[in-house]
Parts: sequence; structure tokens; C-alpha cells
Amino acid sequence: MEATPRRARRHDPDRRDRLIEATLGIIADHGVAGVSHRSVARAADVPLGSTTYHFTSLDDLLAEAFTRHGDSIARVFEERMRAAPDREAAIDSVAEHISADLLGASPDLVLSVELYVAAARTPALRTVTQAWMRRSRQALERHFDPTTAREIDALIEGLVLHSALSTDPMTPAQIRAALHRFLP
Amino acid sequence: MEATPRRARRHDPDRRDRLIEATLGIIADHGVAGVSHRSVARAADVPLGSTTYHFTSLDDLLAEAFTRHGDSIARVFEERMRAAPDREAAIDSVAEHISADLLGASPDLVLSVELYVAAARTPALRTVTQAWMRRSRQALERHFDPTTAREIDALIEGLVLHSALSTDPMTPAQIRAALHRFLP
Repeated sequence: MEATPRRARRHDPDRRDRLIEATLGIIADHGVAGVSHRSVARAADVPLGSTTYHFTSLDDLLAEAFTRHGDSIARVFEERMRAAPDREAAIDSVAEHISADLLGASPDLVLSVELYVAAARTPALRTVTQAWMRRSRQALERHFDPTTAREIDALIEGLVLHSALSTDPMTPAQIRAALHRFLP
Repeated sequence: MEATPRRARRHDPDRRDRLIEATLGIIADHGVAGVSHRSVARAADVPLGSTTYHFTSLDDLLAEAFTRHGDSIARVFEERMRAAPDREAAIDSVAEHISADLLGASPDLVLSVELYVAAARTPALRTVTQAWMRRSRQALERHFDPTTAREIDALIEGLVLHSALSTDPMTPAQIRAALHRFLP
């Protein structure tokens, strides 16, 4: 039984995974500007050459890290939309997603906005934001037509950002009211 | 006549202004992480001590720079709302503001998202985002009630970001349609 963890350690199949997690930690703490081969290798506790072995470039590593970030939020949202029995429940779930999942988790919010800056600067990263938006809209399309889903997705974004950046954020009830105005 | 520019240079009343402009240039090119007393002084072509003379801290300088950025966009939007003769024209002007002013100006967009990251990390900067949102909503309140104005302001934000971060952005007609759904 002892052989298994040893072999696992020698092959270190989690190393790639740890590099991605370490990258997200650095972005959350110091921003994309803090990400370097050296800082990531140190945070993941792996040799410096590991990052170049697993990722062709820092941009590749950033893309993988941000993809993981988007996936983890999209998965929670998909589950909420899957669980909503009807359109009315879906609207309440969107409101809950905004207040609890998106505004409730401060490192996640910082990671999202870091992704937006990175994608605004580096067009290649827009495949990451595009994939995340597509997934989020597909989840909404369980309850809404594609055009409506796309528009709600944008409204969610604006409601989250304006609450996060406000000294007087909307209450959950005000967020729900905004969604209901859009989806009467 | 020669004395005037000399006196102006000695007093250098524009120095504070140049420091703010230099800061915005550095943020646009390198992000907030690139802003230091040294980099700003060099870009503004002033002695290193000037930044500490004019600004109590780098955060103070960032707040002033981002305030100027928000003010310049808010001024354009206020003018559009002032010029709109009625609610219908105001909706078209909001759509035009999104497509032309916000999505059309790439360094401005990067500066805005840099501000969002900075404010997400540094609560003190939320007075800057809050002031910008208040100004933008007041402009909308020429045509809409305060609750509606606040909600449209969030929708504008989401429409801009999702277009900027997409590989398949909404067309101006789709943006206009989204606004009309919200404001029937």
C-alpha cells in the first residue's frame, strides 16, 4: 500500500494542478503583475523548470488559471439553474447567485476583475471570458431564450460590479427588483 | 512678456496636473502596479520629491487620477443626457454612449477596469467609484426615476464589459434592444 503514494509523488500528477492553484493565489494577493515563473514555482513548492515544462508561457498559465476560476463559478451557477423548477424560481436563483456566490466571496470577486483587466489588455484571454459567458448563458437558457439570457448575463455583471464598487450597495431585495423589472 | 512663462515655470502651477496625467498614462500602459513615486516623477519630468509634495501618498495620487478619469467620462455622458429632448432620445443616447464613448475608447476602458480592480482591493478607492456612479445616475435622473437610473447604470456597466471581453460582442442594435427591453 505504501508504493502508491510514493509512485504518485515521483510522477507528481498533481504538480500541474498545484501550479494553477498557486497562480490563482498570487493573482488574488498581488494581481496578475505578481505572476512570474519564479513566484509561481515558489508558491507551488516545485522546481523553477516545472512551470515551463507544464505551460508553454505565462500567458498559457494565466489562461488555465482564469479558466479554472470561471469554471468553478459557472459550475455553481449551472447547479442553481438546474435546480430551479420554473422561470420564477430561476429569477430568485439568479438574485441569490449575485448576493451569495458573487458578492459574498471576496477573493473570487478580485480574481474576476483581474481577469477582466487581463482580457482587456490581452485579446487572447478573451477566449477565456467568452467561454465563461457562453457557459453562464447556456445555464440561463434552461429558463430563458438566448437573447434574454445574454442580456441577463450582462445585467448580472453590472449589478455585481456596481455593488462591489459602491459604498452604498444595493440590498438583495433591490437586486431582485432589478431582475424582475427586466423579466416581468 | 518673457517673464510670464518663466514665472509660470518657477511656480509650475501645472505640475500637479502633469503628475495626474502621467499617472493615468502609466496605469493605461502598465497597470496600477507600475505606479511608483519614481515612475510618475520620471513620466511627468519633475523632480522625485514633487509627488510627495503634491500628494500625501500613492493612494492619494491614484484616487486623484481615477477621479479625473471618471470625471472626463461622466462629463461626456452628462452632456448627452442634457442634449436628449425626451426619454426616447435619452435611451438612444445611452446606447450611443455605450458603443461610441465607452467601447470606442480602448485606453479609457482599460483605465476603468484598472479602477475596478484597485477599488475591489482598496476600499478607500470606492469613494471614487461611488462618486462616479452618483454622477452618472444623476445624469440619468433627468429622464428616469432614481431606482430606474441606478438599475440602468448597472446594465450599462454589464453591457460594456461583456462586449469588451467578448470575441463576439453585441452589435449597437443589440445593445439598443437590451436597453429597450429594460425601458419599455
